[in-house]
Amino acid sequence: MVSTDDLLKRFTDGDRTALSKIITLVENHESSFPDVLDRLYPRTGKAYRIGVTGPPGAGKSTLVSGLVQRVRADDKLVGVIAVDPSSPFTGGALLGDRIRMQDIGIDPGVFVRSMATRGSLGGLAEAAGDVADVMDAFGQDIVITETVGVGQCELDIAEACYTTVVVIVPESGDAIQAMKAGLMEIADVIAINKADREGADRIARQTQAMLELRGERNGWSPPVICTIASQGDGISDLFDQIEKHRVFQTESGLLKKHRRGNVEATVKAIVESEIHRKVWGERSLSKLHSLVDEVMGGKRTPRQASAEILSMIDGR
Amino acid sequence: MVSTDDLLKRFTDGDRTALSKIITLVENHESSFPDVLDRLYPRTGKAYRIGVTGPPGAGKSTLVSGLVQRVRADDKLVGVIAVDPSSPFTGGALLGDRIRMQDIGIDPGVFVRSMATRGSLGGLAEAAGDVADVMDAFGQDIVITETVGVGQCELDIAEACYTTVVVIVPESGDAIQAMKAGLMEIADVIAINKADREGADRIARQTQAMLELRGERNGWSPPVICTIASQGDGISDLFDQIEKHRVFQTESGLLKKHRRGNVEATVKAIVESEIHRKVWGERSLSKLHSLVDEVMGGKRTPRQASAEILSMIDGR
Repeated sequence: MVSTDDLLKRFTDGDRTALSKIITLVENHESSFPDVLDRLYPRTGKAYRIGVTGPPGAGKSTLVSGLVQRVRADDKLVGVIAVDPSSPFTGGALLGDRIRMQDIGIDPGVFVRSMATRGSLGGLAEAAGDVADVMDAFGQDIVITETVGVGQCELDIAEACYTTVVVIVPESGDAIQAMKAGLMEIADVIAINKADREGADRIARQTQAMLELRGERNGWSPPVICTIASQGDGISDLFDQIEKHRVFQTESGLLKKHRRGNVEATVKAIVESEIHRKVWGERSLSKLHSLVDEVMGGKRTPRQASAEILSMIDGR
Repeated sequence: MVSTDDLLKRFTDGDRTALSKIITLVENHESSFPDVLDRLYPRTGKAYRIGVTGPPGAGKSTLVSGLVQRVRADDKLVGVIAVDPSSPFTGGALLGDRIRMQDIGIDPGVFVRSMATRGSLGGLAEAAGDVADVMDAFGQDIVITETVGVGQCELDIAEACYTTVVVIVPESGDAIQAMKAGLMEIADVIAINKADREGADRIARQTQAMLELRGERNGWSPPVICTIASQGDGISDLFDQIEKHRVFQTESGLLKKHRRGNVEATVKAIVESEIHRKVWGERSLSKLHSLVDEVMGGKRTPRQASAEILSMIDGR
């Protein structure tokens, strides 16, 4: 059994095993997690956070691998968080992908972590933010979070990153579906991946047209980059655009605003989960169960049951 | 301006425009929505709720259309809720799909409603449940909810249905990805759609093997059905299996348990959203904003800021 002090000391000394243990501790909400996050917090704020999102099969993980290599060429440290359940980072994809992952996996300047999407305590978005904080505190210069861009929570995670890359492939309707799924709303840079497939130019043009209809936001028009991530094509261009967006955000003050928004969301989430814990004590849970019986028996509506619980809590 | 009483009267008389208006009112959380849901609640509990979920491109909507026609052959009333942003029910898909949708759209025994996945008030899962309640109260015998099976909230919605159909296509890795995304966990019936594609038999066998590894749950082993929804093939088999699962759940008492779980989740969600509303009043929001400034200035950690808000709330 290692004490929290020991663990934190090893963490600040750059011990990767300690980093791994702290991420697990934070993800599982072990008893010391609030204390650990608190003590690491002063070390955060330096990492640039990039979100990579898009439909399943768009080649997000391969593209992330490419970005990692590009970042490593500048000798910067990278953290990767894979929230995408279909990501090979989670360990179960095609052989080729796994080999690529292992290539970056043995580089000591890269730290890869996959996150369970089901049953994470305290909300998936909160957990992903906490893990990014831990990697930031460890000294990673860039943290890349990969999420599958379908699903509300997953979009929220991507949106919390400073630059969001939306990856789509040149397939019939993919751009339209991405727009409908809210992906175009959150895109800062768009990658048309597998651009050697037929129709890539057309999709790129359509995407550009859709973005023009949307209009620029806060003075930024998302660029559309064609990539063939499996061959490394376009990755450098993509990275340049991310870098351009980073500079733009830093200079315009939007980055600070974004970070402020994230802090606010974190504070609110902590308050709410604490209230949640207090509200659902033994007494209110037993009240809840008996009221649910009454609802099932047709004696009350769910809203009447809720009102009873609320008045019980207020009168405590 | 129509009064709530008028609207409810028209609703109980079977007026589809009133149904449509009430769904909108509930989805947008207009001021009268708690009252409306409360008054409709005694009419709920009769509809059987089927969830259809799976990755984008699996042909879920076409399969739902087929199920709707099958249900209509028995002269039962159906409601469809499309939470899937890529669903043609939301109005923006390929022409063929839209025509199919229109076929069922003009049948007075069918009511189709698509839901926005972004920015829904009070949570997407809660809203989807409320809309299903409204359709149930209107007298629909069966309510089918289509969600894209990627994303935590979307899986929660599918899981709240009594029978969950997971749709996958015979493509390399699709079954594995579905398993990793948590789809196999929530499946009561599995449809291998587009089963005329190569490899369908193999995928069906693999899926069956995976399910056997998982083992039966509560005495039910999910059957695997091959369908070609675009040609109507296998839909009748699929419906028979759903029906079998319904009978199984009813007789084993699992249906009641499932409904009880849904009621409990609803009551909890109402309590929590009410507390949320009370907690974030003018005073605590202004406190939040000044504390976020301090966190940004490095004077506090998010957790310390949360603790201050919590002590302010406790001392009110």
